[in-house]
Amino acid sequence: MSTTTRTAAADLTLDTSAVADLIDGRWGEYRREVRDVLLDDRLRRTEGLDVDAHRARVLEQARQLVEIGVVNRAFPERLGGGQDPGGNLAGFEELVVADPSLQIKCGVQWGLFGAAILHLGTDSHHDRFLPGAMSLDVPGCFAMTETGHGSDVAAIGTTATYDPATQEFEIHTPFRGAWKDYIGNAADHGTAAVVFAQLITGGVNHGVHAFYVPIREAQADGTAGPFLTGVTGEDDGIKGGLNGVDNGRLAFDHVRVPRENLLNRYGDVAADGTYSSPIESPGRRFFTMLGTLVQGRVSLGGSAVVVAKMALATAIRYGNERRQFAGADSDTETVLLDYQQHQRRLLPLLARVYAAQFMHNQLGQRFHEVFSGDHDNDGDREDLETLAAASKPLSTWLAMDTIQTSREACGGAGYLAENKFVTWHQDMDVYTTFEGDNHVLLQLVGKRLLTDYGREMATMDVGGAVRWVADRAVDMTLHRTPLRRAAQSIQDWGSRARSAGELRDADVQRELLEDRVESMVEEIALALRAAKDAPQDVAHALFNSHQHDLIEAARAHGELLQWEAFTEAVESVADPDTRKVLTWLRDLFGLVTIEKNLSWYLINGRISAQRARTVTSYINRLLPRLRAHALGLVEAFGYTDKHIGAVIGTGVEAQRQREAQDHLRRRRAAGDEPVSEKDLKKKSTA
Amino acid sequence: MSTTTRTAAADLTLDTSAVADLIDGRWGEYRREVRDVLLDDRLRRTEGLDVDAHRARVLEQARQLVEIGVVNRAFPERLGGGQDPGGNLAGFEELVVADPSLQIKCGVQWGLFGAAILHLGTDSHHDRFLPGAMSLDVPGCFAMTETGHGSDVAAIGTTATYDPATQEFEIHTPFRGAWKDYIGNAADHGTAAVVFAQLITGGVNHGVHAFYVPIREAQADGTAGPFLTGVTGEDDGIKGGLNGVDNGRLAFDHVRVPRENLLNRYGDVAADGTYSSPIESPGRRFFTMLGTLVQGRVSLGGSAVVVAKMALATAIRYGNERRQFAGADSDTETVLLDYQQHQRRLLPLLARVYAAQFMHNQLGQRFHEVFSGDHDNDGDREDLETLAAASKPLSTWLAMDTIQTSREACGGAGYLAENKFVTWHQDMDVYTTFEGDNHVLLQLVGKRLLTDYGREMATMDVGGAVRWVADRAVDMTLHRTPLRRAAQSIQDWGSRARSAGELRDADVQRELLEDRVESMVEEIALALRAAKDAPQDVAHALFNSHQHDLIEAARAHGELLQWEAFTEAVESVADPDTRKVLTWLRDLFGLVTIEKNLSWYLINGRISAQRARTVTSYINRLLPRLRAHALGLVEAFGYTDKHIGAVIGTGVEAQRQREAQDHLRRRRAAGDEPVSEKDLKKKSTA
Repeated sequence: MSTTTRTAAADLTLDTSAVADLIDGRWGEYRREVRDVLLDDRLRRTEGLDVDAHRARVLEQARQLVEIGVVNRAFPERLGGGQDPGGNLAGFEELVVADPSLQIKCGVQWGLFGAAILHLGTDSHHDRFLPGAMSLDVPGCFAMTETGHGSDVAAIGTTATYDPATQEFEIHTPFRGAWKDYIGNAADHGTAAVVFAQLITGGVNHGVHAFYVPIREAQADGTAGPFLTGVTGEDDGIKGGLNGVDNGRLAFDHVRVPRENLLNRYGDVAADGTYSSPIESPGRRFFTMLGTLVQGRVSLGGSAVVVAKMALATAIRYGNERRQFAGADSDTETVLLDYQQHQRRLLPLLARVYAAQFMHNQLGQRFHEVFSGDHDNDGDREDLETLAAASKPLSTWLAMDTIQTSREACGGAGYLAENKFVTWHQDMDVYTTFEGDNHVLLQLVGKRLLTDYGREMATMDVGGAVRWVADRAVDMTLHRTPLRRAAQSIQDWGSRARSAGELRDADVQRELLEDRVESMVEEIALALRAAKDAPQDVAHALFNSHQHDLIEAARAHGELLQWEAFTEAVESVADPDTRKVLTWLRDLFGLVTIEKNLSWYLINGRISAQRARTVTSYINRLLPRLRAHALGLVEAFGYTDKHIGAVIGTGVEAQRQREAQDHLRRRRAAGDEPVSEKDLKKKSTA
Repeated sequence: MSTTTRTAAADLTLDTSAVADLIDGRWGEYRREVRDVLLDDRLRRTEGLDVDAHRARVLEQARQLVEIGVVNRAFPERLGGGQDPGGNLAGFEELVVADPSLQIKCGVQWGLFGAAILHLGTDSHHDRFLPGAMSLDVPGCFAMTETGHGSDVAAIGTTATYDPATQEFEIHTPFRGAWKDYIGNAADHGTAAVVFAQLITGGVNHGVHAFYVPIREAQADGTAGPFLTGVTGEDDGIKGGLNGVDNGRLAFDHVRVPRENLLNRYGDVAADGTYSSPIESPGRRFFTMLGTLVQGRVSLGGSAVVVAKMALATAIRYGNERRQFAGADSDTETVLLDYQQHQRRLLPLLARVYAAQFMHNQLGQRFHEVFSGDHDNDGDREDLETLAAASKPLSTWLAMDTIQTSREACGGAGYLAENKFVTWHQDMDVYTTFEGDNHVLLQLVGKRLLTDYGREMATMDVGGAVRWVADRAVDMTLHRTPLRRAAQSIQDWGSRARSAGELRDADVQRELLEDRVESMVEEIALALRAAKDAPQDVAHALFNSHQHDLIEAARAHGELLQWEAFTEAVESVADPDTRKVLTWLRDLFGLVTIEKNLSWYLINGRISAQRARTVTSYINRLLPRLRAHALGLVEAFGYTDKHIGAVIGTGVEAQRQREAQDHLRRRRAAGDEPVSEKDLKKKSTA
């Protein structure tokens, strides 16, 4: 039976170009354009450069990108930009194809430094500071993180105290932990910085605001000179990767900047020191300001998916050529990708990468709508931030898993720098903790889920509340007691095939994934009710005792969004063969997600033991079907071996095997092939 | 209640020095001696060296180790060695403390090149070749792996054809895929190699044998000169890590060596070309030869645990100091390790590292017994190889997980080279695929489990068989049908505390872990029965369709062995407090292992849904108890901040925080601390 299925699977024709369009999304054409621009040798990574040489090369490459014109698409048209936030992001994400260091160098310059001026500043700042940022005449830092405070930005120690006498802010680093740290462009190239500091005027701390602060002399030749008076710094030294970016530390000793260097879109100080803001609540003001900088999170998740695609394409291409250990026909060794375990290692990652990509496409779309002003109210921004906070952890961890599994699946060859995996891993590693630590982001998502749950409860009218309680009672009966289990046992006592058929049903998958998120959030919300009127330490301990569950709920929410995005994408496919293959891949994603949490479904009575067995057996049936299309599914990513640059992805292994086979054939033909002792012994005993 | 428990936990006194003795095991004193030798600056890794400089430095360091006298402990006393295989291994494992490149350089020279001469050669080889290997006057290669064949050594393409006319072997590389690859000492330093090749004499291929082959001229100053005639090579170039080892490729064009260069312990060729061997079966001969080289697998798993210990010690020390986000008392930020999620990330790894260590200690003991000749029959060797094949994958993957989680748990600081995680990850990465790909090794273990199961079945007398079937029938009733579940539901309907009490019971944990291995193996064995009389392709497909399950069964077997070793170690502890803390840690290991496979236990009716919930809740109760002893538990590893060398492990973070607090205290005392806008607003609305 499995043979029939496989032949049937192989008979389907995957329309890789249609799939490619789906993957590359709304800005697909531009993505491909940028990808091809990056085939230029001058823009590509050179292995083995020391830190200084790598930094210098990346700066030079960034300057070339300015000339080519692919980095200023987000900025205002009146200043020579493209005013196209979504397109800009898509192009930016592709820059990892050349070298993640180049991407992050560009991210620091235009996605952080430039974007902070754009979003936190007003017209005069745009006029004064954007041209230098856009042209890279002024390499700039985004000086937010401090040694003592990473994810908790609100608690940074740097101060900006207003002095009405001189109409200046005094930027100051009061202690060692308040040094700005891990700041790109800080070690070598930056001549200015957007510095985040506690704004103090008239003895009141109005919270974190951003200031434009020159930090180094700009030399005549465009390079950075020594630090300006009062500014000091340190080099962060060698890092796990991204060594083409000059990260460093900055400290300010009573450094003065004019009042007008406060980027004042969300908070201003008048000449006499009076503070004003369009946003009354300091908390909301802070989150609004940070929210304008969401593009980092959005785009880093997207780039992580790009790298995951390149890694997987390489491992699958190699796994489709590489042979090891004699197979059924003892003369021919088995292709790695024909081993069940190899399929188990790589194909679920393929499904997860597709899912992450489709969710990311929706996120990019949402980002564009908000930042182009098409859909830009508070709710839109809040939704975008939550989506980004859910997507970035999942995508960046997925990239790490994918790169590492791909590297191991290619054995010793995977460990050579020429095959790319190892440097990708080194570079992408920090994506999991910068621009918001992944766990902190998931906790944000979890809190949002709890808030929404609370709102839903709060806004229900009485009739609604009664209905809700009634529904819940039914749920309790069905899910939490043996009754439901007994009912399922009978229902599932049929053939395994029928149960599998049910799990293949998209609505069943959706219900299982949705149900888990909702039930987890509900359970946590109910458990936390006690915190409402408790003393702070008790409330804190109670929340802490559910932190792990809350983060798991957020992860489940993210996976549900990925599944929904995948399903929506599949539903847009017209070609029946292509749709079928993508449906299998979506099923694989749904089922490995359910399998991972199978004990939850069993404990909570959502799946019977009998049906649970079919999850794994259906996965095992999907693997060989998808294996038949694995090459096509990675071809659709649109990264040729030239984009990727990994030697083992170029067919060298197949070539070596042909050579080995030719050699054996020639010897056999010549009759001088030695007999094996083993065969002789077999014959003598036969 | 949780507060009481925690206070109680903190009140226990952990005897860290007793725990340290338990961890360091039989050769503890020597381990500590080597660890301290490695505090010498000349032996420690320097970050940022380029490949050439790193290689040269590591060679120089290896020479220093010869002088210090810590690398030849395994060799015969008559040649100046220590004839202490177990002690040698323990010391070798500690070398990663200096630099994993140095360890692998030494592993290549003494653990592979030297060990092959020792174990595959006979007295005359020892006399001729060991002195040069031991003194490092002859840096040597272990030329086994080929570009085309890694884990499948039996299929290598290099030939050694005997020519009776000259009484020489002709070593030859017949095609590109047969080049020796990833060979340490091949790129730069090696002047000789033990080359593995198919031994052909009189037209018969007797399978893989090892030959001593000079490859480069030895210069007068002790350095390697150009390749000898017929030998060519390539540099493997930059790798993901271990760049202090000069890996490269070697090829042989009809290179001739004297007949006496065959390392002939397990197979010899007489002057006239007649082949002879003490082992009749070519298959068993091959595995016996490879089996003598098991020390690589044993020791690499052990070194992986060493690195995991250093990574975890660093992350836990930092997590115990670093604060982030205001806690219950809004003036003080919460220490990372007090967050439930942070405990969830690090403490199960701590339990797993202890478990891996204790299993590894037993493995080292077993290794010593076999190679000292104390317990050295075929069965002993087979057991040792299976143990090593189970331990190495678990330990090396655990090291990767531990390093990566530790690095992420330390945020941006974790990404700086000065804090070690990133280079550890880079270096340890290849441990998962060299000396036997982890998945291939686990499959070996799985096959051994199947063989043992088959033997057990085969040797049962009729009475036994009947009893076995009867037992099975009972099992089926209890485990596979709703009856058992119904019974359990009633039994478990009591308080959650009672169920947790049961899972805390060591016998219950053991039974659950054992039962899973046995049942999985049994299920696979029954499914594979059909393969016995099937055509080869059908049998192959059937086996392949259970490959993933078999590998999972092998993993479960390894985890059971770890749990048993942990339990045995705990039982040897006399001090009641220490024993209690270690019992909690062992429970945590048992429970996270059960939790990971909870769906299996539920599907197969071993644990009721009700009891399954208590697995996670008991883990959540163990975490704060163990958190109270986390520092002591990593102190017992015996790696001070000087051994480890990570800046964030030295208390700098606590120092920075004291400084910040002093600053705030001074300002408050001086009365010039600004009021926060938030507090002002709260007051005005109050």
